[in-house]
Amino acid sequence: MPETSNTPISLFPVPKLADMPADIRERLQAVQEKSGFIPNVFLALAWRPDEFRAFFAYHDALMDKPGNLSKAEREMIVVATSSVNQCQYCIIAHGAILRIRAKNPFIADQIAANYRKADITGRQKAMLDFAFKVAFAAHEVDEKDHAILTQQGFDQGDIWDIAAIASFFALSNRLANAAKIRPNNEFYSLGRS
Amino acid sequence: MPETSNTPISLFPVPKLADMPADIRERLQAVQEKSGFIPNVFLALAWRPDEFRAFFAYHDALMDKPGNLSKAEREMIVVATSSVNQCQYCIIAHGAILRIRAKNPFIADQIAANYRKADITGRQKAMLDFAFKVAFAAHEVDEKDHAILTQQGFDQGDIWDIAAIASFFALSNRLANAAKIRPNNEFYSLGRS
Amino acid sequence: MPETSNTPISLFPVPKLADMPADIRERLQAVQEKSGFIPNVFLALAWRPDEFRAFFAYHDALMDKPGNLSKAEREMIVVATSSVNQCQYCIIAHGAILRIRAKNPFIADQIAANYRKADITGRQKAMLDFAFKVAFAAHEVDEKDHAILTQQGFDQGDIWDIAAIASFFALSNRLANAAKIRPNNEFYSLGRS
Amino acid sequence: MPETSNTPISLFPVPKLADMPADIRERLQAVQEKSGFIPNVFLALAWRPDEFRAFFAYHDALMDKPGNLSKAEREMIVVATSSVNQCQYCIIAHGAILRIRAKNPFIADQIAANYRKADITGRQKAMLDFAFKVAFAAHEVDEKDHAILTQQGFDQGDIWDIAAIASFFALSNRLANAAKIRPNNEFYSLGRS
Amino acid sequence: MPETSNTPISLFPVPKLADMPADIRERLQAVQEKSGFIPNVFLALAWRPDEFRAFFAYHDALMDKPGNLSKAEREMIVVATSSVNQCQYCIIAHGAILRIRAKNPFIADQIAANYRKADITGRQKAMLDFAFKVAFAAHEVDEKDHAILTQQGFDQGDIWDIAAIASFFALSNRLANAAKIRPNNEFYSLGRS
Amino acid sequence: MPETSNTPISLFPVPKLADMPADIRERLQAVQEKSGFIPNVFLALAWRPDEFRAFFAYHDALMDKPGNLSKAEREMIVVATSSVNQCQYCIIAHGAILRIRAKNPFIADQIAANYRKADITGRQKAMLDFAFKVAFAAHEVDEKDHAILTQQGFDQGDIWDIAAIASFFALSNRLANAAKIRPNNEFYSLGRS
Repeated sequence: MPETSNTPISLFPVPKLADMPADIRERLQAVQEKSGFIPNVFLALAWRPDEFRAFFAYHDALMDKPGNLSKAEREMIVVATSSVNQCQYCIIAHGAILRIRAKNPFIADQIAANYRKADITGRQKAMLDFAFKVAFAAHEVDEKDHAILTQQGFDQGDIWDIAAIASFFALSNRLANAAKIRPNNEFYSLGRS
Repeated sequence: MPETSNTPISLFPVPKLADMPADIRERLQAVQEKSGFIPNVFLALAWRPDEFRAFFAYHDALMDKPGNLSKAEREMIVVATSSVNQCQYCIIAHGAILRIRAKNPFIADQIAANYRKADITGRQKAMLDFAFKVAFAAHEVDEKDHAILTQQGFDQGDIWDIAAIASFFALSNRLANAAKIRPNNEFYSLGRS
Repeated sequence: MPETSNTPISLFPVPKLADMPADIRERLQAVQEKSGFIPNVFLALAWRPDEFRAFFAYHDALMDKPGNLSKAEREMIVVATSSVNQCQYCIIAHGAILRIRAKNPFIADQIAANYRKADITGRQKAMLDFAFKVAFAAHEVDEKDHAILTQQGFDQGDIWDIAAIASFFALSNRLANAAKIRPNNEFYSLGRS
Repeated sequence: MPETSNTPISLFPVPKLADMPADIRERLQAVQEKSGFIPNVFLALAWRPDEFRAFFAYHDALMDKPGNLSKAEREMIVVATSSVNQCQYCIIAHGAILRIRAKNPFIADQIAANYRKADITGRQKAMLDFAFKVAFAAHEVDEKDHAILTQQGFDQGDIWDIAAIASFFALSNRLANAAKIRPNNEFYSLGRS
Repeated sequence: MPETSNTPISLFPVPKLADMPADIRERLQAVQEKSGFIPNVFLALAWRPDEFRAFFAYHDALMDKPGNLSKAEREMIVVATSSVNQCQYCIIAHGAILRIRAKNPFIADQIAANYRKADITGRQKAMLDFAFKVAFAAHEVDEKDHAILTQQGFDQGDIWDIAAIASFFALSNRLANAAKIRPNNEFYSLGRS
Repeated sequence: MPETSNTPISLFPVPKLADMPADIRERLQAVQEKSGFIPNVFLALAWRPDEFRAFFAYHDALMDKPGNLSKAEREMIVVATSSVNQCQYCIIAHGAILRIRAKNPFIADQIAANYRKADITGRQKAMLDFAFKVAFAAHEVDEKDHAILTQQGFDQGDIWDIAAIASFFALSNRLANAAKIRPNNEFYSLGRS
């Protein structure tokens, strides 16, 4: 096991659980109970309570709500775009979540490498093509993109979801990269067997 | 006056005020009272109430809170990065806000054109250089960037603020571009005299 | 009003009117009478009389002559390509001319932001797509581009005009950027009401 | 376990072991005995025996010979550059080899994500900076790069090794991408515990 | 000798000498007498007499006037920037002129390939570095570039000359590419022995 | 004749013929007898005998074997991709070989400038389009590229050959650039008359 325990998890201050506002501390404790550890992004954002609350409210509104995109498909968008943005935290943490949600030990590594050659359906390929356009050339998006997605069976709500997830992780990738947030060691092996 | 009134303000559904949840409708009415019109981004996001709430909570936590960055400086970050992202809504709406907050009718057009040649201070130039790095090459950010900013008098909270604003508008630019949100006509002339 | 009067208008020497060759001085005086001020590009190029004469002869041959492209459409090409080249002088000065020629206070800001989402016709969109290809990937231009433009009703002379204007401002953008030519304050508000 | 067994391992013909030239078949059998499986790149290149022989002779001359670069460091070069080239085969197969050679279950995912934020030494960071320059901007390499590497303790042979490995995998990434060579399922989990 | 005589020299109309305005016809005849052939750029621009006159007046003001940059050095700027712009006409025609002016049969091919590795002086390297910045990132030019050039012995007039030549051929490259102007066969071998 | 004889042919050690392994020395002597000089790439690679042997075995397997691609067409791939990689050695040495193999004094300069405007057939244009995709965006190659090439009459072996040659020179360009290998003076004029 590599000794990385001394590397800070963020370039910015990380408060102690005891010093956090109650609502944030409780959320972290709930996560810890469920997952067995507190993902570092929770700790790294906690020094800014209002931003913390908005970030996770936004995250949950996109990633946890009901909808036509499966939870695994939402994570595919995260992993595919985060990989080109070279965001260590997002690739490794959301790669783990993708493996778990897809019940597939290979899919996260495939999509992080090159979604075009991953074992996904044509519909998922169209979803990721659009997510890529939003992430890397949103100024070129227009009604023709909607037409392509509609042909694949996506409705207007789905198209918004793809765009909104790609946009939210454009934020998340940059913030995690700028703060050098480290992924927890636990993420590397989750969902691999 | 060009006839643009028939162009939709978004590619996605825009609810009527009467159909919005009360808290959202009230916020829009408050904005309308204060500004004389409802900026289209409020209307365009309202069909997704939870995302609406999170988006504006995040926005307000970054743009309206106290801090060492002046409100005009925060808007500079928005205009400089949105311009390279070619986000019509953000350049035009936040350009207006920047003119008003800086009490300067030229500054928004200058920063939208090329912040490197705008009439700004050396400290503001360093701020925008870092915001650009976060917006367009966040994977290369490291401790050396912090050292440059510290030399310009920015503290750790300021550095986070710059990074967080650049990151938040990475989201905002992509979402507004993907939805083709139109700026209100009012924004074009605000703060020009 | 921001105090910018001490900032030089060019990194290079700017001659006094009295020291200019008579033909150049007379042109500047004619412009001043007509416009009420001398655009800084005239002053900044005047130290090189032969280049000055050639530059404006070329400019006038492209922008002022009769032809199928309206004068407003020619300015659209200038603003769209200058914006991606981040040329402060050209965006702000030609933005003003575009507003005046199009009798539209919004169009310049829209095209500077992202011509793909501006309130323009399909024909104008095709014109700007081609101007962009000439400005940023001219080595890929071929007969297929002519076919697209012919379908939109452009004849061979129009196609040349689009290409020549995009090419001329490729020069102009670089020269103005390399010399840091400042736009006159007057340009910011022209044509906005 | 995902059912991927029907997906071909290459867009090009894959000969049966029995139809291969004896020397190639023997090499594959030796690999199989040692590793428990035949990495697909061996099968995918086998239809071109002369190219197969040259490819692996070159590979072995760079990756297996004695030298100052550790075998793990050589694999770091492969994973870092292959990741930006989005080569599924190379990232996943050499990621496994890197984990094994570095005896570190995290290092491959970290370097594939963003080598600048991986848990590596300053010397390894300089090595990967140079490998990146060779892979993505070799036309800009000059004596100054040698000076930087010499300061980190690399000698002339090491500098060649870094450049040659980055160059060889420039070939390998393109060939594997063009042939869509699939990594074997075994690679995903190797060296993770 | 390849049979290319049927390929048109431009995508646009090429007038006959007899149909050209007298001043243009006379210039072409003078060139033909001196060089033994009429470079195709003269023929391809002649259908637009005013633009023709302005183009060559500008060209001559930059390339033929006295100054500290040698005529060979001016052609180096043309060949280096035209090569990255992939302008067939400019690389081949100005490559010939460079060979002749530098009395060096190798220099044009070297600079077209990669000026950083050509047999040029440090001063010429600095000149071409600046020409490249003007050609490909003029929006980043500032006073620091002047300081670097001043250290190499360039004065303010020289700096303008480098910028103006790089800018003029930004125009020329795009126009020649958009019109697909063919270089004359004569250029390929001029100055090679 | 420019005096370049003192410039080293590589940044790395170049062994004397007498110090080379016998098989390598013999290969160089055979080349010298046939061509009248030893191309510098042979000398520059000779200090690494195993890599030398693999490099030339690979080269010969791709460039000298029988096949549907003519030898001139294979050199077109080399010159077109090496030019964008700005590899002085490959452009100049393989440009000479291309001129000789195509019996055409113009073709190498045309393809080095911009293959899209060179005097080549539609089939050769499709070949170079695919070679470019392999060289610069191999991660996007898929079955659709095969379909385009098949329509032009290329079979599966030809498609592999194009991809393999583009890939091999991706290696070769980077290695020659990283080592600053100089082309021999002889190459500049070969095949020009």
